[in-house]
Amino acid sequence: MVSGTVGSLGEFGLIAALTARLPQHAGVLLGPGDDAAVLVAPDGRVVVSADVLVQDRHFRLLAGQGAAVGRKAAAANLADVAAMGAMPTALLLGLVAPADLDAQWLLDMAAGLAEEAAETGAAVVGGDVTAGPLVVLAVSALGNLQGRTPVRRAGARVGDVVAVCGRLGDSAAGFALLEAGLGDRHPDLVAAHRCPRPPYAAGPRAADAGATSMIDVSDGLLADLGHVAAASGVRIDLAAAALPPDERLCAAAADLGLDPADWVFTGGEDHPLVATFPPDASLPPGWRGIGWVHAGEPAVTVDGATRPGRAGWDHFGESR
Amino acid sequence: MVSGTVGSLGEFGLIAALTARLPQHAGVLLGPGDDAAVLVAPDGRVVVSADVLVQDRHFRLLAGQGAAVGRKAAAANLADVAAMGAMPTALLLGLVAPADLDAQWLLDMAAGLAEEAAETGAAVVGGDVTAGPLVVLAVSALGNLQGRTPVRRAGARVGDVVAVCGRLGDSAAGFALLEAGLGDRHPDLVAAHRCPRPPYAAGPRAADAGATSMIDVSDGLLADLGHVAAASGVRIDLAAAALPPDERLCAAAADLGLDPADWVFTGGEDHPLVATFPPDASLPPGWRGIGWVHAGEPAVTVDGATRPGRAGWDHFGESR
Repeated sequence: MVSGTVGSLGEFGLIAALTARLPQHAGVLLGPGDDAAVLVAPDGRVVVSADVLVQDRHFRLLAGQGAAVGRKAAAANLADVAAMGAMPTALLLGLVAPADLDAQWLLDMAAGLAEEAAETGAAVVGGDVTAGPLVVLAVSALGNLQGRTPVRRAGARVGDVVAVCGRLGDSAAGFALLEAGLGDRHPDLVAAHRCPRPPYAAGPRAADAGATSMIDVSDGLLADLGHVAAASGVRIDLAAAALPPDERLCAAAADLGLDPADWVFTGGEDHPLVATFPPDASLPPGWRGIGWVHAGEPAVTVDGATRPGRAGWDHFGESR
Repeated sequence: MVSGTVGSLGEFGLIAALTARLPQHAGVLLGPGDDAAVLVAPDGRVVVSADVLVQDRHFRLLAGQGAAVGRKAAAANLADVAAMGAMPTALLLGLVAPADLDAQWLLDMAAGLAEEAAETGAAVVGGDVTAGPLVVLAVSALGNLQGRTPVRRAGARVGDVVAVCGRLGDSAAGFALLEAGLGDRHPDLVAAHRCPRPPYAAGPRAADAGATSMIDVSDGLLADLGHVAAASGVRIDLAAAALPPDERLCAAAADLGLDPADWVFTGGEDHPLVATFPPDASLPPGWRGIGWVHAGEPAVTVDGATRPGRAGWDHFGESR
């Protein structure tokens, strides 16, 4: 535990306190504390991704929630790496924080980031801290393909089966509950919003099973499969019967007077993985079929028709 | 040229416009547009570093200055990679921007980032964009050691010569001139502040010449050599006679009634490289000796004495 503000720790005190909380591993040839870190890249390639989370947009500065914010920031990046078919190896944290921020919140955030990274075996090897008017977490992730061909968005082929691994809609439901002041009634959905649990290992397993395309669902199932459809030049049709909202989502939706299927099809931030597989592939454990790849203009349909309503988020606030 | 705001382009329009401006190279196996990028790591290792620049702290949103801000953001990261003895291979850009920001400023910034990266042969392989109340540029850099041992801060040895490559104090002088409204009198110093020109290739050359420690000067010569002294457990003594402010700095300091040596010893953001070499090493072209490594408590002295005044910057505003 620390007491006081970020400013009272100072830049170098903050860096020292943060660094003490960061996991390392044998693949880290040089960890935090120099101009740069050095990592092994055993197959001669490295996967890299970046995500930025902004206070009051992606998270709130609530007391006691620092660890969940750190986990969420890590999860968004680690899921991107997994969606290529790679295992995450390291994170870098670029951090903006006000000098008057409670230092404990920030150290909890770092601990959460480190815990989530450690779940995948990834280290946190460095970063940067600077002062600013609000908290921004800019996380970069590196990954190891372990000899695999990267699984792109562009590889879906007509006849492939579409499959998902992980939860859909929980985070959106949790957010709606919090907004309505009903978070206490469904704590597991609120927890899913604050702290998504992507199925990281499912990414490399899907690659090994022959996945032809893959993406993590950060903006919504329809929106993210829309990227796959566009990149692959195919139409993706989902079967609503394969995507039933579960009891928890139905109960929460009833409390709010909403349609739980909206959360399943358009909710983001759960970071499940969605992939296409050849029709004769055996889906790996945890994956379930939800639709098929068809010829046609790039689009995502449900039971053959465009689903009404919004597909997902545009981060500058325009609908699409 | 584009007209309108970031919000009118939308997230995906912005990403498309940014991506079109980013250089790639043969080592980029998979560039922007997927969940992650894939790069070659020819010697089985990768160097990684991160830096964050915040509006109104590291740069201002002046019309026509977007390209310089992009160059500066790239330079800070590329210099970190060079300071390990590596050649930069790629940048990632995590970007926060208000929806009402002039889109041209942002595209100019991306073009500047890309140009600076291209000077080192680095690609810009991906990133993330999100809305927020001010502009934040979170840049990560990757590098290739090309078989070299990374040059750390911790390797300085008693008897080594201390040497620098690149300019010292120009950026601080430019900043002081701008603050005083006298930028027009010394446009080259203002340009150095807006757009530092680190000597990237000097990093790998120093490693090849046997440099025992190296760092880039981002916070000030005394402050950054202080990190080397602390990490190496040595005292570093600089010779003031080897670090004379040049005519341009002297003229600017006279205009402002300041001591130009303060800029040389404590000015940051020029990103020259400073390194230690064995006493019998031949300094590579562009490097000049400025002092020696001594036994003793970790400290940086000038002509044997502690230099009065501030050593450099603490980013949370406390002096050190």
